[in-house]
Amino acid sequence: MKPVCLVIGAGAGIGGTVAKRFAQGGYHVVLARRSDKQGLDQLVCDIEADGGTAEGHLINAVEPSAIETLIKDTETKAGAIAVLVFNLGAQIGTRSLMATSLKQFELGWRMACFGLFRAAQAAIPSMVRKGKGCFLVTSATAAMRGNEGQHAHAAAMGGRRMLCQTLNAEFGPKGIHVAHIIVDGAVDAPDTLGKMIGAERFSELRSTVGARDGLLDPVHVAETYWHVAHQHRSAWTHELDLRPWSELPWWNDKPQPTAKI
Amino acid sequence: MKPVCLVIGAGAGIGGTVAKRFAQGGYHVVLARRSDKQGLDQLVCDIEADGGTAEGHLINAVEPSAIETLIKDTETKAGAIAVLVFNLGAQIGTRSLMATSLKQFELGWRMACFGLFRAAQAAIPSMVRKGKGCFLVTSATAAMRGNEGQHAHAAAMGGRRMLCQTLNAEFGPKGIHVAHIIVDGAVDAPDTLGKMIGAERFSELRSTVGARDGLLDPVHVAETYWHVAHQHRSAWTHELDLRPWSELPWWNDKPQPTAKI
Amino acid sequence: MKPVCLVIGAGAGIGGTVAKRFAQGGYHVVLARRSDKQGLDQLVCDIEADGGTAEGHLINAVEPSAIETLIKDTETKAGAIAVLVFNLGAQIGTRSLMATSLKQFELGWRMACFGLFRAAQAAIPSMVRKGKGCFLVTSATAAMRGNEGQHAHAAAMGGRRMLCQTLNAEFGPKGIHVAHIIVDGAVDAPDTLGKMIGAERFSELRSTVGARDGLLDPVHVAETYWHVAHQHRSAWTHELDLRPWSELPWWNDKPQPTAKI
Amino acid sequence: MKPVCLVIGAGAGIGGTVAKRFAQGGYHVVLARRSDKQGLDQLVCDIEADGGTAEGHLINAVEPSAIETLIKDTETKAGAIAVLVFNLGAQIGTRSLMATSLKQFELGWRMACFGLFRAAQAAIPSMVRKGKGCFLVTSATAAMRGNEGQHAHAAAMGGRRMLCQTLNAEFGPKGIHVAHIIVDGAVDAPDTLGKMIGAERFSELRSTVGARDGLLDPVHVAETYWHVAHQHRSAWTHELDLRPWSELPWWNDKPQPTAKI
Repeated sequence: MKPVCLVIGAGAGIGGTVAKRFAQGGYHVVLARRSDKQGLDQLVCDIEADGGTAEGHLINAVEPSAIETLIKDTETKAGAIAVLVFNLGAQIGTRSLMATSLKQFELGWRMACFGLFRAAQAAIPSMVRKGKGCFLVTSATAAMRGNEGQHAHAAAMGGRRMLCQTLNAEFGPKGIHVAHIIVDGAVDAPDTLGKMIGAERFSELRSTVGARDGLLDPVHVAETYWHVAHQHRSAWTHELDLRPWSELPWWNDKPQPTAKI
Repeated sequence: MKPVCLVIGAGAGIGGTVAKRFAQGGYHVVLARRSDKQGLDQLVCDIEADGGTAEGHLINAVEPSAIETLIKDTETKAGAIAVLVFNLGAQIGTRSLMATSLKQFELGWRMACFGLFRAAQAAIPSMVRKGKGCFLVTSATAAMRGNEGQHAHAAAMGGRRMLCQTLNAEFGPKGIHVAHIIVDGAVDAPDTLGKMIGAERFSELRSTVGARDGLLDPVHVAETYWHVAHQHRSAWTHELDLRPWSELPWWNDKPQPTAKI
Repeated sequence: MKPVCLVIGAGAGIGGTVAKRFAQGGYHVVLARRSDKQGLDQLVCDIEADGGTAEGHLINAVEPSAIETLIKDTETKAGAIAVLVFNLGAQIGTRSLMATSLKQFELGWRMACFGLFRAAQAAIPSMVRKGKGCFLVTSATAAMRGNEGQHAHAAAMGGRRMLCQTLNAEFGPKGIHVAHIIVDGAVDAPDTLGKMIGAERFSELRSTVGARDGLLDPVHVAETYWHVAHQHRSAWTHELDLRPWSELPWWNDKPQPTAKI
Repeated sequence: MKPVCLVIGAGAGIGGTVAKRFAQGGYHVVLARRSDKQGLDQLVCDIEADGGTAEGHLINAVEPSAIETLIKDTETKAGAIAVLVFNLGAQIGTRSLMATSLKQFELGWRMACFGLFRAAQAAIPSMVRKGKGCFLVTSATAAMRGNEGQHAHAAAMGGRRMLCQTLNAEFGPKGIHVAHIIVDGAVDAPDTLGKMIGAERFSELRSTVGARDGLLDPVHVAETYWHVAHQHRSAWTHELDLRPWSELPWWNDKPQPTAKI
């Protein structure tokens, strides 16, 4: 029986591409996303056409029991979850404080932070019984610093980063590998970035910056997810960053005459 | 008319003591806490006996509109809020993942993180109109790193730290001073630490560690709150830590033979 | 007998102004700098005219024994050092890797990092015998992140930040308060910033940005140095940042369409 | 012609093992270390016996020109350096401030920080001409926080971490991948850890903690070095940590009754 990889947030970008990589590597992949059944079915088809096995489920992660049911059903039907990729974000674009509704702020937390907490409570007990398992959490620069207009997103990401640390502290010593992967840059992903900046700008970005590898290519991001998930337990990584070669890390600024030094 | 200082979370520890300090400094202080009217009235009495002015309100911060109403009423009756001290935490003690209920995890977020978001939306517009104001946010080591058993608390604190950064990014340039104060140690506070570890252990801690200034004394913590709130705008602090002289910072560990180096 | 404050790096900016503040507060201040005897004498005059006591010394900090002799002489003649302000930096402006000579890289380290190590070895023993003392170390954004062209400066600052932590770990529990103060912005200081960007640009900066408090005013920076040095030992700060209200912290970037989020 | 990997600090632990991994991967490896020609020759033999090609050189990295000559000779004889693994540390064990000599403090800096600066100046120009290259820098927890007794080591590591960031800022956009790898734990390495704690304790550590994968196994550490060096340029990692599954990260402490929370 194949080991199981569950991807919560399997869009066409990082989530779906990581799913493909794990399928290529011999996992049975369970892909879950909120909407766009067509896109989901396409991902499953691509995986099967490539010789892998996969299944897709549409779920609304913020609904009570949705995550729990998904995980329980996966364990029951597909088998124990070896790798859980938590790929839900809370990025709604830049909005001033007063333009961020209570609902948006709460939704960000429910999806990205509370969602991980629930997924952990649902999936970790089995992992602990097996003595092994892996959580790969797709994070963002907003987990490291809060930019203007990022109230909902940064609060959700910052909270989740700390949750990854508390999970790691409790379960690392029980054989569960928890990794927090900071995606520090724009990802070539039509479902997320594409939707946020619009098709025209996204297309322009792809043909300029993307043409010189200046956008994070999900295929290559997935290679690192694969690597981290298979690190030998004597040398685990808890946190790492990923960005295109041409992009400055979030901590840098461009040198200017009156630049802060 | 006196400038107004609103303390949300005015217990007998840092909250109430910062309230006293600001009253001594000429502010009219509005103290809000969840329960223990007797203790609240006592704080108000102490302030008045000392020549200051204050008022107390019991509110349940997580209730819809509670924070908003408190702030609106304060602005209407006492005047524009000059300093808002956000002193609500989410510390429920150490609990394993499976012993942390969904309710507890959510409550931590609602109190500490969502509560600040709501307070900011309610109070900042007036501050922006005035071109000045100050938010002092009492934080904890859990905002910097997630220890075992701290799932709810660390997630709430980590999220709030990022929110303080997004608020600072948007409003610092509008004249609002946002400061994130990391209380890195046990505080001599009967309402919080005392309740958590029990009266007997708290008393013992006070007479041993506390006797040699090894517990954070709220009176001295309040001096730094006062200083930060009155920093000239050409030299503002956004983040600082506080701990007793005898206690090692959270980032250190005790030297041991096989210590990680 | 007055307590003694030694300022190593007493230019007209932060160093000299902190010296003035401590003199106003009743300290006998010993000011040490590399050059410009006229400027040094002026600072001493200003302090004395204001009713304080001070003395100035020209020293080349990187010379063997220079720091040690200064500290020993100070202890012998003026008395035990209560507060040592280490205000030597390594900022030589922005230079590419190949334009940074070995000599420059080493000089940065000798001044800013090795200099503190030597000052600590020279001054801390007396402080430990007294059971108290304080080191205030003027730091920079370069201690937190390395920008392009900042090889010598960032390496020196980053090393020194870790040294401040090792000093704090060993001596905090012995009653020595070690504080690392991150000056995150341009300082209104003719001797350092003025020299680096030139008189004309400095003057322009002062009349525009500076006119709206957008440059760190050493007078107000000094108030925070004074506060930190006098914190009660139950509530010490090890690290804090300082910047003008209008300037974004180093961790932020300006919101742009394709901004990293 | 094979791509060249130069390992500066090729002991029997991480350095030599990374060398072996790159040799297995088809690189010609140049191993440089300070002493123990026998051990060095053995590593070269092992690589050749395994079908790879390698050469060993004894150098004293702190000597003027030693690093520069090594790099120049390597480029001339073996070819352009594709990957430079900088594996020199400054760990001399725990010593109090007064027990750390000026010479030790300086030596730590010369080896670990200045050494990297010189290696970068020597090797990067060729890499820039080729438009590609990689620096893998073996770091330590001491680059992230300064523990008691770690003055020389932490100052050197902290400085080097900032240097890695300045190098990355300048050369990432020129196609040079700079990675800072934080080894957060005890490594199963006889040349470094073994020497520091003594053969008897090292043997004991190996048979207890090591037997359950609680020591970082250089073979598995090397896999991550290999992965990072070959990341596609659209998704580079600048910083990551490595530790055994059973060991708590440096930022955590063990939960205790009066634990800081």
